[in-house]
Amino acid sequence: MKRRTFIRTAAYASAGVAAASFSAPAVAQGRFRWKLITAWPKNFPAIGTGTQRIADSIREMSDGRLEVKVYGGGELVPPFEVFDAVREGIAEMGHDAPYYWLAKHSAMPFFCSVPGGLTAPEHAAWIHFGGGQALWDELYAGYGLKPFLAGSGGSNVGGWFRKEINGLEDFKGLRMRIPGLGGEVMARLGAIPVNLPGAEILPALQTGAIDATEWIAPYNDLAFGFHKVAKFYYAPGVHEPGPALGLTINAKAFEELPTDLQAIVQRAAGDEAFRMLCEMTVGNAEALGVLLDKYNVQLRRFPQEVYDAMLAAGADVAREAAEKDPFTRKVYESWLGFREKIIELSPLTELGYMALRDAQN
Amino acid sequence: MKRRTFIRTAAYASAGVAAASFSAPAVAQGRFRWKLITAWPKNFPAIGTGTQRIADSIREMSDGRLEVKVYGGGELVPPFEVFDAVREGIAEMGHDAPYYWLAKHSAMPFFCSVPGGLTAPEHAAWIHFGGGQALWDELYAGYGLKPFLAGSGGSNVGGWFRKEINGLEDFKGLRMRIPGLGGEVMARLGAIPVNLPGAEILPALQTGAIDATEWIAPYNDLAFGFHKVAKFYYAPGVHEPGPALGLTINAKAFEELPTDLQAIVQRAAGDEAFRMLCEMTVGNAEALGVLLDKYNVQLRRFPQEVYDAMLAAGADVAREAAEKDPFTRKVYESWLGFREKIIELSPLTELGYMALRDAQN
Repeated sequence: MKRRTFIRTAAYASAGVAAASFSAPAVAQGRFRWKLITAWPKNFPAIGTGTQRIADSIREMSDGRLEVKVYGGGELVPPFEVFDAVREGIAEMGHDAPYYWLAKHSAMPFFCSVPGGLTAPEHAAWIHFGGGQALWDELYAGYGLKPFLAGSGGSNVGGWFRKEINGLEDFKGLRMRIPGLGGEVMARLGAIPVNLPGAEILPALQTGAIDATEWIAPYNDLAFGFHKVAKFYYAPGVHEPGPALGLTINAKAFEELPTDLQAIVQRAAGDEAFRMLCEMTVGNAEALGVLLDKYNVQLRRFPQEVYDAMLAAGADVAREAAEKDPFTRKVYESWLGFREKIIELSPLTELGYMALRDAQN
Repeated sequence: MKRRTFIRTAAYASAGVAAASFSAPAVAQGRFRWKLITAWPKNFPAIGTGTQRIADSIREMSDGRLEVKVYGGGELVPPFEVFDAVREGIAEMGHDAPYYWLAKHSAMPFFCSVPGGLTAPEHAAWIHFGGGQALWDELYAGYGLKPFLAGSGGSNVGGWFRKEINGLEDFKGLRMRIPGLGGEVMARLGAIPVNLPGAEILPALQTGAIDATEWIAPYNDLAFGFHKVAKFYYAPGVHEPGPALGLTINAKAFEELPTDLQAIVQRAAGDEAFRMLCEMTVGNAEALGVLLDKYNVQLRRFPQEVYDAMLAAGADVAREAAEKDPFTRKVYESWLGFREKIIELSPLTELGYMALRDAQN
């Protein structure tokens, strides 16, 4: 552990030296070499593969004028230092989930996922056409950053539990890995929320440091192997209905790009915003069968009182977040107004249709 | 009418002459000038604006090396001749809904929308990661075309009716504008389906040439003004759960592009695949309020026996389409297998979540 810490620190420091003047070595005759750091393992299903697709896409579209090298979580900086590392110019870009940065600002979860909030396509609609991007830009500009929507985990399932959940009382004292406002919701239900990077969850479950975890959905959950330790799989979830991933760019580095390369970076993110959701959906559909048929995972639905309590607590934590800061209030009001309209619309469109299709099958 | 036909034909012929040798005048020192024709009015909400975004996106990313000029339906060729015009090189690209080309091949609707089929994100998942793109490529290669997913209408509502629908018997003899397999479903219910380009629907409703129409959903429906003639608005619909739009490219023209411009065209389409759905969602949410509050539109749900009959007929027409052609069978089997997995998954993810959220509000 000591050695590992040393290596990380050394890499961080060395990268920092190079990065302090990245605009000089990174640019040569209109050519750029950028680093893209992530908060997850390299090529991790749908998420890490999505990061790599963004890098490949930028290289192909720019004919190599902008080369992007991807670093998995911990390779250049620890997973939860992505935001600061991009801010400081250690890397030009990060691919991350904005709610990881909740401690930076109470508005962060609204640009990622809020319990009882928006699904992935609804969130993208708010970002692209509902006023979300302008607010996100305003928040990140304060850190010298420029964000683009660049992926989504889709509607997350409830999570993995070592013991069955038969009612609200089973959450008392339960130690669960769950970040962001979802963690605050679990705390209101009496659980003890913990935030861990993906790669540290299984060891924590194995040692008993945590009793339960949510991560994403079947595809990624299967890849981490949570079924080996926790047999009860709860779905659907309401704590992260569509966690958005951001491409977080050092604003100064972005401004140094010519406008065609800026457009290329933006569209690479825009393309990945949907493509990752697609890979996730196909992967989830396949992995669900494997978990149920091959590993005999016990699929469960939370009791209705649990869903009711989670949704009520979700509405509370979102409203209370808005009370912490005037900017967060502005974000919350835009987001809440959009959510209300979506709840009117969706029974007439996607939800209405899917429910009819489901009832027929 | 005669004059209008003449003008269209003249424009078509003149464009044809120029196009026969488009590879010569269109290319100059690595610069390309392309035409992008559409099956809808220029800058029509979300659809036509999406076409323009694709053109702008390509120009910005290529720094003007690939200039794309957009033509609305009828400006260069009539809306329903887009496929053939791109095939013949009259334009290099078309933006269209593949089910318009049902008469060309029975497999077309599976690349667009099938009654009781996939929602927009599910369809994109099948195209990008479920084997759909390879099949779509195979089909279009036979026509000298290369397709990319480039938008979606989202889950379409049931449509506009001059008279209330109280049961299956009300469909007997009803003349309704509804294209593709949705039209075949309506025929099984006893209606008389008609296919009309968007701009011709309102006049047909006004003269009584048709009794009902579906188009898309509140945003686009409001823009065409169907509420002025038909007061009953039925939703949700099951006939077009997520009609995909394609960027249909002349394969020879595409091959003449350098690989960076090919990548740019592909990602411009990929970005728009999600962005259009976003604009549609926000527009629908706003327009629904206008239709209900300002125009006093009567929102209705079809009787359950109607939904049941539509879904049953939808499954039939999809299966029967597969019997028409060995290639269509191959497409159908890939699509159906994916649909079955999605129906297992969605109650645990998007559908499960949205239903819980809806019940709480």
